[in-house]
Amino acid sequence: MTVAPNPQHDRLQQSAKDNLILHFSKQEIDDLLVIDRAEGPYVFDTKGRRYIDALSSLFCSQLGYSYGQEMAEAATQQLTTMAFNTSWGTAHPATIDLAEKMSELAPADDYRVFFTGGGSESVESAWKMVREHFIAIGQPQRTKAIARDRAYHGVTLGALSFTGVQPFKEGFGTPPVEVTKVSNTNRFRADDGHDEAAFCARLLAEVEEAIVAAGADEVALIIAEPVQNAGGCFTAPAGYWTGLRAIADKYGVLLMADEVITGFGRIGEWFASSREGVAPDLISVAKGLTSAYAPMGAMLAREHVVAPLVAHRKVFRHGITFGGHPLSAALASKSIEIIERDQVLENVRAQADPLQARLQHLLDLPIVGDVRGAGFFWAMELVKDDEATRFDQAERDDLLRGFLPRRLREAGLIARCDDRGDAVLQIAPPLISDAALLDDIVAGLTDVLRDAGKHMGL
Amino acid sequence: MTVAPNPQHDRLQQSAKDNLILHFSKQEIDDLLVIDRAEGPYVFDTKGRRYIDALSSLFCSQLGYSYGQEMAEAATQQLTTMAFNTSWGTAHPATIDLAEKMSELAPADDYRVFFTGGGSESVESAWKMVREHFIAIGQPQRTKAIARDRAYHGVTLGALSFTGVQPFKEGFGTPPVEVTKVSNTNRFRADDGHDEAAFCARLLAEVEEAIVAAGADEVALIIAEPVQNAGGCFTAPAGYWTGLRAIADKYGVLLMADEVITGFGRIGEWFASSREGVAPDLISVAKGLTSAYAPMGAMLAREHVVAPLVAHRKVFRHGITFGGHPLSAALASKSIEIIERDQVLENVRAQADPLQARLQHLLDLPIVGDVRGAGFFWAMELVKDDEATRFDQAERDDLLRGFLPRRLREAGLIARCDDRGDAVLQIAPPLISDAALLDDIVAGLTDVLRDAGKHMGL
Repeated sequence: MTVAPNPQHDRLQQSAKDNLILHFSKQEIDDLLVIDRAEGPYVFDTKGRRYIDALSSLFCSQLGYSYGQEMAEAATQQLTTMAFNTSWGTAHPATIDLAEKMSELAPADDYRVFFTGGGSESVESAWKMVREHFIAIGQPQRTKAIARDRAYHGVTLGALSFTGVQPFKEGFGTPPVEVTKVSNTNRFRADDGHDEAAFCARLLAEVEEAIVAAGADEVALIIAEPVQNAGGCFTAPAGYWTGLRAIADKYGVLLMADEVITGFGRIGEWFASSREGVAPDLISVAKGLTSAYAPMGAMLAREHVVAPLVAHRKVFRHGITFGGHPLSAALASKSIEIIERDQVLENVRAQADPLQARLQHLLDLPIVGDVRGAGFFWAMELVKDDEATRFDQAERDDLLRGFLPRRLREAGLIARCDDRGDAVLQIAPPLISDAALLDDIVAGLTDVLRDAGKHMGL
Repeated sequence: MTVAPNPQHDRLQQSAKDNLILHFSKQEIDDLLVIDRAEGPYVFDTKGRRYIDALSSLFCSQLGYSYGQEMAEAATQQLTTMAFNTSWGTAHPATIDLAEKMSELAPADDYRVFFTGGGSESVESAWKMVREHFIAIGQPQRTKAIARDRAYHGVTLGALSFTGVQPFKEGFGTPPVEVTKVSNTNRFRADDGHDEAAFCARLLAEVEEAIVAAGADEVALIIAEPVQNAGGCFTAPAGYWTGLRAIADKYGVLLMADEVITGFGRIGEWFASSREGVAPDLISVAKGLTSAYAPMGAMLAREHVVAPLVAHRKVFRHGITFGGHPLSAALASKSIEIIERDQVLENVRAQADPLQARLQHLLDLPIVGDVRGAGFFWAMELVKDDEATRFDQAERDDLLRGFLPRRLREAGLIARCDDRGDAVLQIAPPLISDAALLDDIVAGLTDVLRDAGKHMGL
């Protein structure tokens, strides 16, 4: 589908080249995708072409793009009443009310909320809280952490310590946090991946060994995503999170769930941790918190984490000027209200199984080796043959940075091609997507992946 | 002045205690200041008390709080057209137009803009760009930086490397960037501070020595604020910035101005660097960029910094999901438009000298040892006597964390008590403040500081 092109198309292309530095991109892109309109689950570029945003603008736009008027009313109310104030020793109703609501939705009833500007800051803030906690309780030697292979936890240098994507780290010096990497929950590439119990037991044993090897009284934190994004939507085997909780408790280590992607409905729950039956000591969120109608992140910490700072009347030595911006807080509250009112989580829960069933058919294509994920968060692993042989570097470059992006764009579909782990194509549709739209997405993926297989000679 | 109190006062106090983690604060504050309304340069708490916000909510609210309706219209336009999209390999008109405008206002005509969520992220992003630059030009060994004593450049662990406030760093491990600290431009405490030329020459010699000592081909960056905040509004001696520029050029080091506070009008210019007659290779901004009507920061880098990445078709390995949020970009553009239309910079330039003249009268009070700053950004250093004897730790605790905050609140004045360096009281009024309001602020300060002197037995 097309609409009228933007008469500013050429000027915007040139100006973007002259004036912008793009994120995680080459800096001069011919025919840069410039999005100038959005509606429901669709975005439109300056050429007037429509795309299904099957990635929710990088896992953020839970509600799609048609709640702008309601959001604008909430924005107007806040901007004309109290446009800004910090959370530095002061507070304001918008964040107090949002924090109260977030605590209510969280996996236990004793979380407190520290607001940030986004995911990297949430992880940085959580780590600093962890350090303040251990300093306050007289265990300052707990300076190490356990994180998982290929996991992405942000790119500021503190958060980057936990990130296990090696090419993102090279050249940026020695990470400030000493982190031991353990295996992630990639069962597709694990010898025992078909045996859930054995797979889980082995992974947990590895975590415990890593703690002991690092020095059981020197480890402060285990950090993991309920469903790991980098590598492609690795879900945890049953018992994994309760196992992590038990190990953390055994060694006096804090457990943190990075829910920047999984939080706020992506897999049908406010917090994916709840689905795993655990209440982590800390949780990081961002992206979906506002359904991306405004920038905002947060770090949640349970009362026992914060209590030692309170008891010693210690200042938390960390602050983000715009953390808890009233505008963002008002829009986050409105987003949560809409998700509840319009039964958006219920939609995800109802559609997740049918979506999975549809996606499973992609396994019939020779290029698709695995389909995995949960809720509205799925990855297709791309392989050379039935033995799941990996594409080599040149093939990946061709496939993931050449053919697929071009073909997806042609198909009017926004999805993610990635090989921070193995080669995957990922989708994360807006949580308001109905069956017909999910059909359209799967149909688009089928065409694109069929052509990709042909292109790769399969 | 008082207005009707907020009937939710008690509930909000309790909920804040139960649910919030405050920034740079103790975690349980009796009688927490909860701001629920704002108008012009005033904010109101839930008790119905009015305060002059003489700090612009931590140096952010350039326009004060009465432009909410205009901002709301811009917000509505953006939220209903294109609520969100990332800057990850895509772009959208709101950021393209804002970047173009920022480049136009910047100290040279070849800056490109990378958008972030706030100040810490801007500094992190600048450092990563610096590293990518040197890797791309075949000088990967440039991993060190020069920063200034007591300077604050943010609190995420990368940015914290540059921050020279020691108590904020303890317990957070070895900083990921090796930074040599040089003297800041505190002329009040310098033996040669009265001799501008000698003071400047000594400071520049120290910078050059620091580079040579660190290894001239291992230093990547000199970072400094045009007017340093921590320590209390240290302005640079004449020739300092052109001197830094010359030293950076001599050794092939990049020069960065951290303009998170000074940018966007605080001292009467879009960029304070322009006033110093230099075009730094990189500039970080945040706070005033949107006049705080939405959260946003940015890093600007000149073409020669980015060009090697373009030439090698290298991906900038850094990204912030909400960096360049369309809502924030639209409000930043609107703020810039208003500042131009309402001649806000002209107001700062016209009022700065009279404000300084008024503040100089505070030197008549025994507790005020120095008055320093520029534009609408001023610090009063608090001392024990005419020899500028410093208060000891117990006296500072009493004065800066006891008496003054209480007395300021009573006086209906928001200002900052700080002793990251020596003891100071700082103000940074909204840039729309007229002569009458500045009179009110100075009158309030006079009363409060007179009483503070008595309280300290002076």
